[in-house]
Amino acid sequence: MATDRAQLISTLKNVATQFRIDSIRSTSEAASGHPTTCMSMAELMSALFFAEMRFDPKHPHHPEADRFVLSKGHAAPILYAAWAEVGLFDRSELLKLREIGSDLEGHPTPRLSFVDVATGSLGQGICAAIGSALNARRIQSDYRTYVMLGDGESAEGSVWEAANIAAFDKLDNLCGITDVNGLGQSRATMWRHDMDQFARRWTAFGWNAMVIDGHDIAAILDAFDQARQTKGRPTMILARTEKGKGVSFVEGKDGWHGKAFKKGEEMDKALAELERQFVAGAPPADPATMIRKPSAAPRPPEAAKPVAPPSYRLGDQVATREAYGTALAKLGEADPRVVALDADVKNSTFSDRFEKQFPDRFYQNFIAEQVMVGAAMGLAARGAIPFPSTFACFLTRAADFIRMAAISNVNIKLAGSHAGVSIGEDGPSQMALEDLGMCRAEPNYTVLYPCDAVSAEKLMVAMAYHAGPAYMRTSRPKTPVIYQNDESFPIGGLKVLREGKDDVATVIGAGVTVFEALKAYDQLKATATTIRVIDLYSLAPIDAKSLIAAAKATGGHLITVEDHYPAGGIGDAVAEAVAGSGFTVHRLAVREIPRSGKPEELLERFGISASHIVSAVRALQKVAV
Amino acid sequence: MATDRAQLISTLKNVATQFRIDSIRSTSEAASGHPTTCMSMAELMSALFFAEMRFDPKHPHHPEADRFVLSKGHAAPILYAAWAEVGLFDRSELLKLREIGSDLEGHPTPRLSFVDVATGSLGQGICAAIGSALNARRIQSDYRTYVMLGDGESAEGSVWEAANIAAFDKLDNLCGITDVNGLGQSRATMWRHDMDQFARRWTAFGWNAMVIDGHDIAAILDAFDQARQTKGRPTMILARTEKGKGVSFVEGKDGWHGKAFKKGEEMDKALAELERQFVAGAPPADPATMIRKPSAAPRPPEAAKPVAPPSYRLGDQVATREAYGTALAKLGEADPRVVALDADVKNSTFSDRFEKQFPDRFYQNFIAEQVMVGAAMGLAARGAIPFPSTFACFLTRAADFIRMAAISNVNIKLAGSHAGVSIGEDGPSQMALEDLGMCRAEPNYTVLYPCDAVSAEKLMVAMAYHAGPAYMRTSRPKTPVIYQNDESFPIGGLKVLREGKDDVATVIGAGVTVFEALKAYDQLKATATTIRVIDLYSLAPIDAKSLIAAAKATGGHLITVEDHYPAGGIGDAVAEAVAGSGFTVHRLAVREIPRSGKPEELLERFGISASHIVSAVRALQKVAV
Repeated sequence: MATDRAQLISTLKNVATQFRIDSIRSTSEAASGHPTTCMSMAELMSALFFAEMRFDPKHPHHPEADRFVLSKGHAAPILYAAWAEVGLFDRSELLKLREIGSDLEGHPTPRLSFVDVATGSLGQGICAAIGSALNARRIQSDYRTYVMLGDGESAEGSVWEAANIAAFDKLDNLCGITDVNGLGQSRATMWRHDMDQFARRWTAFGWNAMVIDGHDIAAILDAFDQARQTKGRPTMILARTEKGKGVSFVEGKDGWHGKAFKKGEEMDKALAELERQFVAGAPPADPATMIRKPSAAPRPPEAAKPVAPPSYRLGDQVATREAYGTALAKLGEADPRVVALDADVKNSTFSDRFEKQFPDRFYQNFIAEQVMVGAAMGLAARGAIPFPSTFACFLTRAADFIRMAAISNVNIKLAGSHAGVSIGEDGPSQMALEDLGMCRAEPNYTVLYPCDAVSAEKLMVAMAYHAGPAYMRTSRPKTPVIYQNDESFPIGGLKVLREGKDDVATVIGAGVTVFEALKAYDQLKATATTIRVIDLYSLAPIDAKSLIAAAKATGGHLITVEDHYPAGGIGDAVAEAVAGSGFTVHRLAVREIPRSGKPEELLERFGISASHIVSAVRALQKVAV
Repeated sequence: MATDRAQLISTLKNVATQFRIDSIRSTSEAASGHPTTCMSMAELMSALFFAEMRFDPKHPHHPEADRFVLSKGHAAPILYAAWAEVGLFDRSELLKLREIGSDLEGHPTPRLSFVDVATGSLGQGICAAIGSALNARRIQSDYRTYVMLGDGESAEGSVWEAANIAAFDKLDNLCGITDVNGLGQSRATMWRHDMDQFARRWTAFGWNAMVIDGHDIAAILDAFDQARQTKGRPTMILARTEKGKGVSFVEGKDGWHGKAFKKGEEMDKALAELERQFVAGAPPADPATMIRKPSAAPRPPEAAKPVAPPSYRLGDQVATREAYGTALAKLGEADPRVVALDADVKNSTFSDRFEKQFPDRFYQNFIAEQVMVGAAMGLAARGAIPFPSTFACFLTRAADFIRMAAISNVNIKLAGSHAGVSIGEDGPSQMALEDLGMCRAEPNYTVLYPCDAVSAEKLMVAMAYHAGPAYMRTSRPKTPVIYQNDESFPIGGLKVLREGKDDVATVIGAGVTVFEALKAYDQLKATATTIRVIDLYSLAPIDAKSLIAAAKATGGHLITVEDHYPAGGIGDAVAEAVAGSGFTVHRLAVREIPRSGKPEELLERFGISASHIVSAVRALQKVAV
């Protein structure tokens, strides 16, 4: 047995050396990238892939396979080297690194079958790993999730949000590894090689923290063993390493971050030094015999039942945030994949309705929006349909996660409540006025904004079963139900609520401003002027055809009105949709920093109430005359 | 002396009781707000304002006065009560809480003279407090900064970014207080009253952590004393408290977050109980004799010298990010108020040029963008002119801080480098494609985007001395210098680079796309077609008049081209600016998630290269014919 282990270690050493060589070759060929960042973690990767993780190297998506998340995404070349080494693709592909025709990008994205979520924005992979670990618990699988962090990355606050939540949730199926090479991009890291700085933090946050020599394969294997046997808390292996390990003229030296070895003399010198490190006589690394298998076969897909339809009466006063909670619980009833994530506002967003029925699929993140969205990304990547929700303004806290979720194209369903000045007295810090723009910016996000309870419930179901990232904006005030329970709300549609042949303008609202538009309609009608009123419940995709038709039918007069700042909002969305047909848009939006006050006072003061719509219509009529 | 102290404690107890009463009265009058959140911290506030802090109650802006930041901004009513109690305004004002006509908003904003930065998005105040403490060091003042956090707030990752940086910077002039009342909004906090959870975290992060009974005034005074005497590290006072303290039917009870006492029986019962808690015979609280004075008189304003002008030759190849670094160093030379903040990318953003000359005014935040922007907010609020910079994509990590900086209207100067697909091989995670929209969304942000080194340097100076928040976007690739060193670049302007009487269209670019537009001009000119080319270096404010004039002169044909997603970017900005004149805009922008590749390959593939501009012009010509 001792000999077996000695042989294994020799083989793993050689794999590590091969990883270093591959990381250098590919980055030198690309003339960019981070070889020294890869070199510090070569033994860790070798042990993970050839001795620790259970997976099917030919089927990275295997649902019962252990997961690996490269939180330090700039070490992509060694991740690619590992998957080449286990046989997923030919090693020659590595030399196409960073080329436009190759999916081996500068940082990993799920264009690659073995990448669950895109990384490269630090501090996010560990959050996604939590989602992956929560999903294992949800489906009662014993797959484990491994996540590799950088030491510099540990300065990101999101890492500590993750640290708190993983410990609170007792995720002993999660194993973190921090590659403590002591060097950041521009200088030494905050704690360099002071391993106690790391150990005391992770211990204080409730993790099983271990300090090891990250180049000692025996120590690495022991650490993984110990982690697997630790119950009731996650493990963080703190691995002391040297950046650029294995090549003496860069090892532990500053100034080599994100720098490829120059092809020719420089690269050759580095490779020659590494070639000499191969242990002679070690058995070759054989993926077929060495890699541990997933502990179970893939199970059948999870089945969903139909979702209970809405049951409101016209005129009922129901906030869309409340309808959100109701629909979320109905979705939970219908589909075991549906999960909800909160940041301590469940009683305001009404996600507590889901929690009451499905406490095991409700993940409380306390006041930590980044890990909430990051965990949702990991859950989505593993087959769940996660609904993270909080006040819409606080989703900006996770803007970078929302961005990376777009790059990952994961199936997350964000919801933000308490949008706009219509929240009233709490004041500007609680008012989301940028959220539509933030989500519309991402090319693959669906963006929905219902005005009543029926449309909110219908759109929730549509959103749940529409593949890809999506965002729903809900409102704080109660609004009357204006749709029948059997009305349909396809994504990418709109509703024409008022229409006549003499309409002088089209007024386009969404959410609370739909009701301002309807009030304006009534006021104008009393003076024998009619307007077309549109509920633009789907901002992305947008029904350009119907908007253009409405513009044509109403003298080209389009007025948008939104409880949002102008940039990136409803006005901009409509303007772009109709620009090709030569129509322009008059935008009513919030144009200054708002303040506390009563909702109706604020709609008036900040220019988005019925009276402002009436004035805008009158002004257009004057121009037209 | 013992009697004096006993009397002081009795007086402070009574102040605390008065604070509770005022917090209840004001929120009950408003019928909303967070009285129980205020009640847990009444003794802490009473001791801070009447025994610990040195300030001038009539002049909250006094530059040598100790600062207080209410990081748990929802406790605004007790902050207002404190400033009424010290005599800044009449107590009767408190009853206007949350009214549209009062500056006593639901959460504090700098509309109030005693508020440095807006709070209400948790985890931000402590970051701003770091900036305030750094500023004291910069101006060599002994003013101290106090910051009050909530226990629920401690789940925010930004709190731990702040914890790291404050310890790293040895900010012993910073004193945090965590009001550990054990209850969040929707449930008990993660750690309830387990004080060791807090103590071990703050200790692990290098702070002087103390656990006290937050209702014991003697203990509070001792803790402040000890904090003042602690050298070389910041202090965190962990105060065990009860939410709703003082009113037995709410004290320590869940379900009372953000709930005002109902006027009438409920409020009266609470107030009656509190009235009985006044210590009879205690000396009244006299601000004039009790409040400690600032240790120095205000000093004269800091003087600035002229900034050295740019010195380039036409055609020099210089990246705008490099010009940023050059200008930053020149600004540092000219003005002691200019400071720079980094998140471990100084060698990529070129802010290291500033660091080399002014290491004492360069604040390294390692990879922690939230505290970088938050500290900049605090520095700005205390008179510095801070330039936080990182890759533009990673500014999204601080989106919520950027939002709160808008509400605070602080004088921060953000800069984001490596914008758009033109960064090339690193891939989508490193490409900012939402940053212009993110900053344009805020009504008071100046948004600048230079295309060459001369305009970059000129705009840096303009930005530095333009009051209010601002953002400059810079690019990774080298671009040729196209402007003379004496060219002027007023904020809100643009440059017409090509112009002829037969121009068939106006092409509007900024940054790298200006050069694509110039290439398109050359290609079209070879076929006897001319276009107008505009460098829109100022996106907010925007020169609508010149854009409209260009549209009129070129057949109404406007084409925008931007290295950015469409939403909220250059196309949207121009479209809104010209909409009132009836012009529409044809937008060339990045419309899908990009990938790794060479910069020029990516500009071509994602539709924003010269060839796409030429095609767009040709298509317009066809329509026109």
